[in-house]
Amino acid sequence: MSKRIITLLTDFGDEGAYPGVMKGVILSVNPDCHIIDISHLVSPQNVEEAAFLLNNSCSYFPERSIHVVVVDPGVGSERKPILVETDKYWFVGPDNGVFSFVFLMEGFKKVWEITNKSYFLPEVSSTFHGRDIFSPVAAHLSLGVPAGKLGKEFKKFVVLKDLEPKLKAGVIKAKVIYIDHFGNLISNVSKDLFGRFVADKPFKISVGGKMLQKLSLSYADVRDGEVLALFGSSRWLEISVKNGNCQRELGFRRGAELDIIIAQ
Amino acid sequence: MSKRIITLLTDFGDEGAYPGVMKGVILSVNPDCHIIDISHLVSPQNVEEAAFLLNNSCSYFPERSIHVVVVDPGVGSERKPILVETDKYWFVGPDNGVFSFVFLMEGFKKVWEITNKSYFLPEVSSTFHGRDIFSPVAAHLSLGVPAGKLGKEFKKFVVLKDLEPKLKAGVIKAKVIYIDHFGNLISNVSKDLFGRFVADKPFKISVGGKMLQKLSLSYADVRDGEVLALFGSSRWLEISVKNGNCQRELGFRRGAELDIIIAQ
Amino acid sequence: MSKRIITLLTDFGDEGAYPGVMKGVILSVNPDCHIIDISHLVSPQNVEEAAFLLNNSCSYFPERSIHVVVVDPGVGSERKPILVETDKYWFVGPDNGVFSFVFLMEGFKKVWEITNKSYFLPEVSSTFHGRDIFSPVAAHLSLGVPAGKLGKEFKKFVVLKDLEPKLKAGVIKAKVIYIDHFGNLISNVSKDLFGRFVADKPFKISVGGKMLQKLSLSYADVRDGEVLALFGSSRWLEISVKNGNCQRELGFRRGAELDIIIAQ
Repeated sequence: MSKRIITLLTDFGDEGAYPGVMKGVILSVNPDCHIIDISHLVSPQNVEEAAFLLNNSCSYFPERSIHVVVVDPGVGSERKPILVETDKYWFVGPDNGVFSFVFLMEGFKKVWEITNKSYFLPEVSSTFHGRDIFSPVAAHLSLGVPAGKLGKEFKKFVVLKDLEPKLKAGVIKAKVIYIDHFGNLISNVSKDLFGRFVADKPFKISVGGKMLQKLSLSYADVRDGEVLALFGSSRWLEISVKNGNCQRELGFRRGAELDIIIAQ
Repeated sequence: MSKRIITLLTDFGDEGAYPGVMKGVILSVNPDCHIIDISHLVSPQNVEEAAFLLNNSCSYFPERSIHVVVVDPGVGSERKPILVETDKYWFVGPDNGVFSFVFLMEGFKKVWEITNKSYFLPEVSSTFHGRDIFSPVAAHLSLGVPAGKLGKEFKKFVVLKDLEPKLKAGVIKAKVIYIDHFGNLISNVSKDLFGRFVADKPFKISVGGKMLQKLSLSYADVRDGEVLALFGSSRWLEISVKNGNCQRELGFRRGAELDIIIAQ
Repeated sequence: MSKRIITLLTDFGDEGAYPGVMKGVILSVNPDCHIIDISHLVSPQNVEEAAFLLNNSCSYFPERSIHVVVVDPGVGSERKPILVETDKYWFVGPDNGVFSFVFLMEGFKKVWEITNKSYFLPEVSSTFHGRDIFSPVAAHLSLGVPAGKLGKEFKKFVVLKDLEPKLKAGVIKAKVIYIDHFGNLISNVSKDLFGRFVADKPFKISVGGKMLQKLSLSYADVRDGEVLALFGSSRWLEISVKNGNCQRELGFRRGAELDIIIAQ
């Protein structure tokens, strides 16, 4: 049987030793798992961004992968460590909304509060549960320890508010939820939602003073430097500048409003 | 037999999920390959820089490694996905010049246009062929699928212009092709080319208003803060400041001209 | 038996090919080892920072791991390449103080100067011993080559000065030795040292014009935006701003003085 995969998504940064320490802890428990970094550069303490990146990446991994997410502003407080089981995957991290898209879009089978300290590091700090709780628990899970031994079932988990656009008098009120490395603005308008509400009606997209009247199918549809709207590779509506940086050239920030005005 | 190695060199950045997604796709096809990051921080859409970094790194890997390069400003256009076979390696990526040094310096046996959609992801986006075409194709190749099944032979591949210096009236007209993490300026003057044209003749190196009259053998040859020219670890002529940052201190940019004036 | 782990800690940066090249060299010697990045973003040529990050990370890895550290301003000079054996681990790198904490805190069994060129790459550059010496030596060590074959015993190794705080008239004169990704200031005051000298006596912590009068146990003890002192996850005294960035908000730099004034 193939090695179990454990993915890591954190805001710990690449310049220090925190992600390496998590890997050392995991490999000390299960030397034969395969650890893959999603990213350690989630904006510090930005739970919504982590939820979004997890949603865009988790489904490309083989079944039985264990996705560990540690963006954890409440570390050391009462927030609970949790474990989520879906049809294909396991998810391990804090109960602060990082798994919102898993709950909203992927569906899930069961959620556990992680409580069994015998699967933690012997000494648990108040500031680094990624090392002391989430890494060893994920590693034990990868060895086949059943969820029921790691904790107890749990139903009142946190789901982030305002993740999804609102429909209001013929306008889809959306926002820029992520800006990628190329400066593309990625909105929270999914292809499904667009299809449901806009369908074949004429529409305009208003974002940061710009008004776009159509969707492009690829960058090749426009000229260098031109602004375009298209459904990107993750099926979210994106605003881009061809062979340019939309964020820099048009001065956008994450959270910027994006309205889709639908002709009635 | 040892696991097949797949290396990744892209401009996708480290802060998002794109490289992680490629790894998930590869491991879904071949859970037993070994994925190694070269870098995901090639300057956005800079094909020449990717070609240069590939040239400096690929030959240090074991035979049969598969090098995937995705710096792909033409994604979604007519540019073709290709596969290159050399004596030791396989290369997978867009036909836009990223493999120029492979064609010019390494030699190659055969090039294929990748055409067989049954080895792609079921749905191919217009913006992320790294995920939808190059990753699954590399993974199938690592499982032993023959190139002839992945596509058809192809001969009119792209080679970048102006990669190599020009010799003009006793002057080697070269350029700064890369600036590394330490601010060292790395030129496109190889040790071989220098040996061929300069040999034992006196010379001066003119770069950004500075005139250097000799080559150093190591940083230890000069004092802290001094500018020196030496052949670096990849056998390219480099301009450095000892224990300093040449780029920052002397205000250089990639593409800066560098002339080697040879006494006649 | 599980695969041998080789960890890498360097200042080579993530944007170029240097760390990837090291991995290619290692895998060419031992295709079955497991390479883990600690970080490649140590501040350029900052040996003290590398020593500190190594100390915070190495002990979380399984026994028999090989820790390679290449922060090497003296590359190409007379500084020696060394190999250090402790009860649990091996360490490979330049003899410039990067292993100071290993010598001071971990204890060690033996140190070797690495001298046997038959375990180096055939051609050794003057600028990239990470590739030409340290990687192949670590890989051969992971295959079981005994240290005595790699070099000869060595006793006059370098230990950095001023790593540890000084006690002076009831004041612990310490410093900020590292600033992490979240802007937390991490000092060179260990929990042990604090316990030994402060114990139950009243104290004040003076840092950058701020005066703190108590230790917190976790971020949850204070309000958002408040400055706090606590022993962090690595058991060093840290100064933080809750859900903020202490470095940015209070204008600190690495090396800043931090005094603990103990009531007599």
